Amino acid sequence: MKATIERATLLKGLSHVQSVVERRNTIPILSNVLLEATAEGQLRLMATDLDLQINESVAAAVDQPGATTVSAHTLFDIARKLPEGAQVSLTAAEGRMTIVAGRARFSLGTLPRDDFPVIAEGELPTQFELPAETLKQIIDKTRFAISTEETRYYLNGIFLHVAEGVLKAAATDGHRLARVTVDQPEGAAGMPDVIVPRKCIAELRKLLDEVDGSVGVSLSGTKIRFDLGQAILTSKLIDGTFPDYSRVIPTGNDKILKLDPKSFMEGVDRVSTIATEKTRAVKMALDRDKITLSVTSPENGTAAEEVPGEYAASPFEIGFNSRYLMDILGQIGTDLVEVHLADAAAPTLIRENDKSPALYVLMPMRV
Amino acid sequence: MKATIERATLLKGLSHVQSVVERRNTIPILSNVLLEATAEGQLRLMATDLDLQINESVAAAVDQPGATTVSAHTLFDIARKLPEGAQVSLTAAEGRMTIVAGRARFSLGTLPRDDFPVIAEGELPTQFELPAETLKQIIDKTRFAISTEETRYYLNGIFLHVAEGVLKAAATDGHRLARVTVDQPEGAAGMPDVIVPRKCIAELRKLLDEVDGSVGVSLSGTKIRFDLGQAILTSKLIDGTFPDYSRVIPTGNDKILKLDPKSFMEGVDRVSTIATEKTRAVKMALDRDKITLSVTSPENGTAAEEVPGEYAASPFEIGFNSRYLMDILGQIGTDLVEVHLADAAAPTLIRENDKSPALYVLMPMRV
Repeated sequence: MKATIERATLLKGLSHVQSVVERRNTIPILSNVLLEATAEGQLRLMATDLDLQINESVAAAVDQPGATTVSAHTLFDIARKLPEGAQVSLTAAEGRMTIVAGRARFSLGTLPRDDFPVIAEGELPTQFELPAETLKQIIDKTRFAISTEETRYYLNGIFLHVAEGVLKAAATDGHRLARVTVDQPEGAAGMPDVIVPRKCIAELRKLLDEVDGSVGVSLSGTKIRFDLGQAILTSKLIDGTFPDYSRVIPTGNDKILKLDPKSFMEGVDRVSTIATEKTRAVKMALDRDKITLSVTSPENGTAAEEVPGEYAASPFEIGFNSRYLMDILGQIGTDLVEVHLADAAAPTLIRENDKSPALYVLMPMRV
Repeated sequence: MKATIERATLLKGLSHVQSVVERRNTIPILSNVLLEATAEGQLRLMATDLDLQINESVAAAVDQPGATTVSAHTLFDIARKLPEGAQVSLTAAEGRMTIVAGRARFSLGTLPRDDFPVIAEGELPTQFELPAETLKQIIDKTRFAISTEETRYYLNGIFLHVAEGVLKAAATDGHRLARVTVDQPEGAAGMPDVIVPRKCIAELRKLLDEVDGSVGVSLSGTKIRFDLGQAILTSKLIDGTFPDYSRVIPTGNDKILKLDPKSFMEGVDRVSTIATEKTRAVKMALDRDKITLSVTSPENGTAAEEVPGEYAASPFEIGFNSRYLMDILGQIGTDLVEVHLADAAAPTLIRENDKSPALYVLMPMRV
């Protein structure tokens, strides 16, 4: 192969694919990016970690079509350090790839393109479109709740399913739950329930920053593909059963607290300065229109702050993990948040209002 | 004690002192900052790690003079999270300090001020002033060469001494040497040779960003004090003998190479992409007005780049650690740098020109 490409174009493409490539690989070719120069004037880039695959196409001047694979991180580092505006020539022959730009010349070892593993998509019968903005919202409002416990692998992603005529996205780690609902897109009816892995979500979210318009989603019970125009992301799905989370969402919590999420969050942040790294527990004492946050730590001391809020139910105290509380409050976009409480041991519901597409459930802590 | 202070003023003072305080301390009071409210309307802050001490004075409304010590990092975190413009009241009594700002209230455990260790300065007979700009230059152009090998403790700082009517600052780790000379300030004559420890240098450099005008320097053979106006830094000196570095500075290197430090540095950076993390070796082949940088790595491949330069001596090849070379080139402020070479095994001299206050010596590597 022989192709010439603008440094900025190459760099952008490589920046997408190199982040899919793991830093350490037992299979050498997984460190590589597959480069394919086509007769149609395109350079196709592809990278995989065997669970997630990214394909990207960029414009290039192709002298001789062909394909090879070369270290993704090394090529990315080279492209990064080349001067702005440079024209980069890529030539592959006899097990080496030569990269020339200006006075600089690199030669890298290659591995045959035929050895490069490709994720077999199979049939992806469910196909629909989602506005990029909607997809961003779904991810931003749920991903913080994804479990990082590897033993609970079925919680290591975002659960997507259709029910009651809407598309629902949920994530939980057993301590908190985040759920977003959006209008069911055309074509999503009858889709299988799927769990999209954390890494796919992370890469997808990065790519979405460069996308306007719509994203094509295609899926089966085992694979999902996101078509973002220039880039296509294909991922295996998590093979497990997501718990029936709807049972965790409280419906009868009758103690309603309304407050300004910003000043509430700042208060939680301040009093939790005193909390030990281990528990991070903050106590909330509710009295008629008087909310007092407090933390007591044997090592560090005590902290208390009154935050403004509306509350008319019977007084009581409840404890939360301050980090979890702040994660949720950070996703509230309105200037009023509703907290639905039952008692000091019951799951608490947090949402903007009864029309908001997102809701959060937080388990209390004993304090 | 009881005092009220502007949040921004307290935060700035604490940001200086808290960085002297180590994160882990076996002696509990070393985690604390000494706070002293004086009848003259000042809050004095002091922190130490037993080798380095910082004293700072800020304006405060003092209701009741007194002093106590409290966790420096906790107080800093609290001040950081308080709202802008808040008035912070500090009250100490009966082993506790109460911090009140707006609706927030904190209570922290204190330790008695009398237990707080103070570095006994003793006599500091040598006293002179240095413009803050000069002190910044001395530090910036030498600190990167300070050794981090703890066993060579006598290299873990910047060596300051007067000789031949100038004040000289030097740092080396055995692989490279950086030396800066400045006019001998009035009062520096006869000063003892001193090694200022790395941590003192780091804290001093941070404080210098906020200082205009001059810095007072006072020292003996064992202590040094920097008077920066609002802040005073006192440090023990390294008790050791700095090697006679002047013998390392080559004087007879007759192969002169002149090049643009920026394009040279970029070239070194690019070809070193291929270098292994361990050696980072880059080869420089010199021919008449033709300089070729190259790296060969069995794992990664090869890289070569020609950089423009003036060279008229006999052709030869020499190797350098690319990181060390870039550290030095990054300090060159002119658009021409002189490299004085002898042979592939001899120390190489790098400087802007024969009038530049800074010079660098770099040991070559076998490549």
